[in-house]
Amino acid sequence: MAAHQPRSIVLPQPLALDGGGVLANVRIAYETYGELSADRSNAILVCHALTGDQYVASTHPLTGKPGWWERMVGPGKPIDTDRHQVICANVIGSCLGSSGPASAAPDGQPYAMNFPVITIRDMVRGLIGLLEELGIEQLHAVVGGSMGGMQALSLAANFPDRAARVLAIATTARHSAQNIAFHEVGRQAIMADPAWHAGAYYGHDDSPGAGFAVARMAAHITYLSEEGLTEKFGRRLQDRETPGFGFDADFQVESYLRYQGSGFTRRFDANSYLYITRAMDYFDIAGEHGGMLADAFKGTPARFCLVSFDTDWLYPTAESRHVVHALNAVGAPVSFVELSAPFGHDSFLLDVPELDRVVAGFLNG
Amino acid sequence: MAAHQPRSIVLPQPLALDGGGVLANVRIAYETYGELSADRSNAILVCHALTGDQYVASTHPLTGKPGWWERMVGPGKPIDTDRHQVICANVIGSCLGSSGPASAAPDGQPYAMNFPVITIRDMVRGLIGLLEELGIEQLHAVVGGSMGGMQALSLAANFPDRAARVLAIATTARHSAQNIAFHEVGRQAIMADPAWHAGAYYGHDDSPGAGFAVARMAAHITYLSEEGLTEKFGRRLQDRETPGFGFDADFQVESYLRYQGSGFTRRFDANSYLYITRAMDYFDIAGEHGGMLADAFKGTPARFCLVSFDTDWLYPTAESRHVVHALNAVGAPVSFVELSAPFGHDSFLLDVPELDRVVAGFLNG
Repeated sequence: MAAHQPRSIVLPQPLALDGGGVLANVRIAYETYGELSADRSNAILVCHALTGDQYVASTHPLTGKPGWWERMVGPGKPIDTDRHQVICANVIGSCLGSSGPASAAPDGQPYAMNFPVITIRDMVRGLIGLLEELGIEQLHAVVGGSMGGMQALSLAANFPDRAARVLAIATTARHSAQNIAFHEVGRQAIMADPAWHAGAYYGHDDSPGAGFAVARMAAHITYLSEEGLTEKFGRRLQDRETPGFGFDADFQVESYLRYQGSGFTRRFDANSYLYITRAMDYFDIAGEHGGMLADAFKGTPARFCLVSFDTDWLYPTAESRHVVHALNAVGAPVSFVELSAPFGHDSFLLDVPELDRVVAGFLNG
Repeated sequence: MAAHQPRSIVLPQPLALDGGGVLANVRIAYETYGELSADRSNAILVCHALTGDQYVASTHPLTGKPGWWERMVGPGKPIDTDRHQVICANVIGSCLGSSGPASAAPDGQPYAMNFPVITIRDMVRGLIGLLEELGIEQLHAVVGGSMGGMQALSLAANFPDRAARVLAIATTARHSAQNIAFHEVGRQAIMADPAWHAGAYYGHDDSPGAGFAVARMAAHITYLSEEGLTEKFGRRLQDRETPGFGFDADFQVESYLRYQGSGFTRRFDANSYLYITRAMDYFDIAGEHGGMLADAFKGTPARFCLVSFDTDWLYPTAESRHVVHALNAVGAPVSFVELSAPFGHDSFLLDVPELDRVVAGFLNG
């Protein structure tokens, strides 16, 4: 079987970026699921999270694993591809076919750290460019969890006529100091790895895998709840009855984290991780709109739905409530629910039947 | 001025360790403050935290900074050196004069990773050895916060006649999966640094400072509360009005973390950090006593006081409550208070006047 070639387009216009620069020849890799209706009104844009990709409901070409949201997207699923065309695109800055630090710069060499620093709004500009190429004026809905939810909110704030419904799950309208702090630890772990070579490791025999794995391990803890970790691992030992009194992975939780760290570095580009975490840190919708979050949504024609999880300490319920208050202030129709689930931030990706019902109800109501 | 020579003794007996080995010629470095009474009954042992030391109320010889708990320990302070002799010893495994990985092994070379893996109970065995040398049969009290509180609880469980009062602050009777996970990230960050040289970096020109700084940064986040970080830093930028759209420390919280990380690596030994975090991960008083925490304290003659902080997510109030329930189950006198303070886990070191009152009341009541 031939290697998978991501489906992609090159935007006809350069993207003007929040950082002041311009990115030309922007490639957007994407997948679609289901048929677009004759009046082009049934499209749902699903936005992916930090380390996600366009393979929302199809096999990942590198890992061979199922799509990251197959439980949510497909025929008869809450995001129903029998009724809607689902579009999912790799964000710019990432590494699954869209323009990012591993892409060739105009000089033919990988951008590496010469790729411009981008923002969530820049990612959304790329997505809007894709929708224009696909001839979709208004989405039935834009949907996303975590960084995907940031894109959904940013799209609503900056391109208000582009989506009739906005579903933002386990997310926030701005990155907090603690969010920034965890990301900074991850970036420092990558940059401290001598094999990072100031980002110019492409074509080298080595790559900053060790530092990158540490970054992933630290981030992974923030995706889970304390209760969930206790339930899943507790203090159980790995393949032994009594403690080994050493520095091997004696505890199951250590073994699990090491596995998560090393597996991740084989499917993701370390520089993309730097750029995307940075984009999230700069995320502050209120800051982009004069300081008041409500002003960002003034006159929005969309209906909104916000969902948070009670064990999510990365983007806790208070962050969603903050968005809801802003939407209330401008009279936008918004429903909001905090769901109870034991999995922490990762709940939006996992088996939470109540989430399925909320998603289906909002998209089809 | 001559370099500070830590006051220390060498234990006359080797220490039998939980891991099965024996450590001979154990050196314990310590400081005392105040006078021992004629009947040797007024001593208070203060136990230090992970990166603490014996300089609880006197200048740190490397940093020149005041003692780490001067607000609590001194003449007329809550731990009153006019009334009590305060003893504070560097734990074994550490690097401020007590035996640890940087100490000379019998072959004259630094132990490095040949130092035996130790436990909190092993640290306490070292402290008991010191008390024997000082001729102190029973302490007026043993006091500690965080890992210091673990030592206080371990001393009570394993040497019940040695302390009349046990004051354990912001601590736990066992390390949780999340606690272990964060420590594992820190260890992996150190071990991923090529300059770590499998621990044998002593005498090298380089040292694993970069990886160690990342470890400290990650840990530091866990010592603070989300609310505290927001209050102290929020999304404020460092020395600029508008975002730089780059990878420099644009946000104040990044700058602060980098400073914390790099400063720490100059005063602490990376291998000691590995050994002490490992000791904390193995900490599980119930596990050491057949699985039931109450059994660890059966027949204890001591009075206990437990203090937690409402914003401490490293060792949350539920962990202290767990200890209190065990003490209740064996009829031990125990008082317990959750204090409100915005500083997260670090509250025990900071300006919380209510803590001062609780400490003074318990020690002098």
